[in-house]
Amino acid sequence: MRDLGFRTLDLRGGGRAEDPSTWRGLCSRAAGLEGEADAAARAIIADVRARGDAAVCELTSRFEQRTLTPEQFEISREARAEAAARVSPDLRAALVTAAHGIRVFHETQAHADTGLEIEDVSLYSRVAPLRRVAVYAPGGTAAYPSSVLMAGIPAKVAGVPEVILVTPRAPDVVLLAAEIAEVDRVFQIGGAQAIAALALGTATVPRVDKIVGPGNAYVTAAKRQVFGLCAIDGIAGPSEIVVVADATADPELVAADLIAQAEHDVLACAILITDSEPLVPAVIAALTRQLGDLPRAEIASQALREHGAAVLVDDVAAMVAAVNAYAPEHVELLLADADAVAKQITSAGAIFVGAFTPEAAGDYTAGPSHVLPTAGAARFASPLGVWDFVKHTSVLRLGRDALAAQAPAIARLARAEGLEGHARAAELRLRETT
Amino acid sequence: MRDLGFRTLDLRGGGRAEDPSTWRGLCSRAAGLEGEADAAARAIIADVRARGDAAVCELTSRFEQRTLTPEQFEISREARAEAAARVSPDLRAALVTAAHGIRVFHETQAHADTGLEIEDVSLYSRVAPLRRVAVYAPGGTAAYPSSVLMAGIPAKVAGVPEVILVTPRAPDVVLLAAEIAEVDRVFQIGGAQAIAALALGTATVPRVDKIVGPGNAYVTAAKRQVFGLCAIDGIAGPSEIVVVADATADPELVAADLIAQAEHDVLACAILITDSEPLVPAVIAALTRQLGDLPRAEIASQALREHGAAVLVDDVAAMVAAVNAYAPEHVELLLADADAVAKQITSAGAIFVGAFTPEAAGDYTAGPSHVLPTAGAARFASPLGVWDFVKHTSVLRLGRDALAAQAPAIARLARAEGLEGHARAAELRLRETT
Repeated sequence: MRDLGFRTLDLRGGGRAEDPSTWRGLCSRAAGLEGEADAAARAIIADVRARGDAAVCELTSRFEQRTLTPEQFEISREARAEAAARVSPDLRAALVTAAHGIRVFHETQAHADTGLEIEDVSLYSRVAPLRRVAVYAPGGTAAYPSSVLMAGIPAKVAGVPEVILVTPRAPDVVLLAAEIAEVDRVFQIGGAQAIAALALGTATVPRVDKIVGPGNAYVTAAKRQVFGLCAIDGIAGPSEIVVVADATADPELVAADLIAQAEHDVLACAILITDSEPLVPAVIAALTRQLGDLPRAEIASQALREHGAAVLVDDVAAMVAAVNAYAPEHVELLLADADAVAKQITSAGAIFVGAFTPEAAGDYTAGPSHVLPTAGAARFASPLGVWDFVKHTSVLRLGRDALAAQAPAIARLARAEGLEGHARAAELRLRETT
Repeated sequence: MRDLGFRTLDLRGGGRAEDPSTWRGLCSRAAGLEGEADAAARAIIADVRARGDAAVCELTSRFEQRTLTPEQFEISREARAEAAARVSPDLRAALVTAAHGIRVFHETQAHADTGLEIEDVSLYSRVAPLRRVAVYAPGGTAAYPSSVLMAGIPAKVAGVPEVILVTPRAPDVVLLAAEIAEVDRVFQIGGAQAIAALALGTATVPRVDKIVGPGNAYVTAAKRQVFGLCAIDGIAGPSEIVVVADATADPELVAADLIAQAEHDVLACAILITDSEPLVPAVIAALTRQLGDLPRAEIASQALREHGAAVLVDDVAAMVAAVNAYAPEHVELLLADADAVAKQITSAGAIFVGAFTPEAAGDYTAGPSHVLPTAGAARFASPLGVWDFVKHTSVLRLGRDALAAQAPAIARLARAEGLEGHARAAELRLRETT
């Protein structure tokens, strides 16, 4: 049996047994700064800005070897319905089950106006859905209908009137997912040119308020560059899991969940953190066994070898500290006291508690969106949710008494900031109506 | 008297009386795509990444003609307290009044966990404050202590344990504002080098989770580029107001509020939208008169001439449509039926309703943050608020029955997506424990 090449980092006793920089290196994987794709994305955006639909057609031909006229960008309602009807009933039923879970969960996130009324003052943060958003779904090795549900349903729960699915490849099952998610329009364009068209608008592609959903490096670079023209959900990096397990964990489950992550992509990160030294060889043995007949064993093996690790730490406190330092997209807790540890995890996209909560449940059916912050962004970013599809507007109304009470402070501060016009705008109102 | 040069656009009767592209031009001011400052910001970020504090010192010397050692980056608690104590009692009282209003309003925005428990399923979006955020306050022509309150207080209401004020210039009143806002640390660095240091961390400058607050073009460019390493609040453009007024409006108030906006900056936008033809010359006359003895008359006049306009439309519906197309940072409603119109405005950062709600009240004392989306971003972005300083984490826990109920759908969807490992991870748990 070939060595799997799954690293073990021993950080016990302060990590001196092993170069701790290895763990720091795994933690500092920020997909933040610009990469090679940025210059290409910049040129593509400029081209779409200058030439609109014509640029989208030409770039689609060049990068995707697809001939597409602007009339073909959008898939008609009829074609969508026909495609959806071709999907097998059992797969449809599975999508409906998933959609139900996602909808029920996101309905708990509904936002309400906040504010106050005191005497003649009324101050509100009014919440309203965005008007038009795009859900980007990548083409690539696999078409993920689940991602259409995971982004489209929260948008619809938020009340977005026009949700557009944008994808370079729209197989029947993806179009069925769009139907179940109540997506309004579907455009079969992709890449940085699709992002540019959505942010700027073209004759055929409507300008949107926000673009969500992960894509390849060019899509990601383009999203960063159009941020400001429209909103975006974040900078997506490779998918990640940290499985936190103690001596009570079943090594087969640990291995299965590491593999489920690793099979996504050769760049996927699958990390075990444990305080149980015997668990590590047991997990490695299980990994090797389970990879034996896995269809995507090659991808998973490469990911485990290049981006995986078993990290040995002293105790529960060290496990928690390691998770919070890594800020993983997914963290799974296979621990005797998983609930208590869950409360101590402050940086993670999603926390899966206990042996009956595999990450795969979160990927499909449980309810919370599987569009999650990656690359350490869980330090500051949230899962995709209803909050992504609403905006707030401040609404202020003062009566005369309130303005009279505030005017001296307004005028004093305005003059301290050298803004005499501000002071006068407040004072003038009181002079005139005394 | 010299002509003010305040344009009038007549969009009545469908706007044929005037080239409607002028209004579209005013509307499409998106500060979205890259500009000249981006290349400079890129080089600065690379330098700070490579050399840390040494780069910050050298760039501060080069761009700000200030000699600063890393030991001098942070202003000590003692120096801050001494500076704050030097501020006059009346200015302190005004800041305390403003802080009170801001705090009371933002306390209404407090976020709570959401989620559900059904049988053996528990699903939550857990809300927690970010751990460390930076409030950037520009140097420039005016130091704005009000902005320190408007960003710092929402962060503290959200529960952020470490709020850092970062500013190239920290006069006493700014340090007093920091004290009143309960800012934890103050760093006197600025520009793109400060943004880079905060996003990456240096030996002296701690890495933060989010950077908020407007800055110059280099700061803005740097913020966009570090987005992903940390969160940012948005891409700030010049400040804007649209005053919507009908025949019942007092032209002196309209003029005062346009001037209060225009005095900020020669790039500020101050626009009147009205259905009252006689109001326009009355406002222009009032503008001319009020500018007469305004200290910042030159700045305000240039802004009004270059970025101001009076827009004549047919009726209230057209006023609403024009505002929503422009998506202004601030909109003021000086109308007979201001409350009804406020409900129809869907894209604005803040809406000021009625004659006793000057935008200046919102700038200082009323309560909602004056850090607002500019450049049309009100289409999709929100005022700075408590929501900016929290993140959500999904917490999932399924029992055996719930997983058993979901497993067929999980497995069916996983296999449809070519992810056999996902299917097995769910099924294994049920096999093992039957």
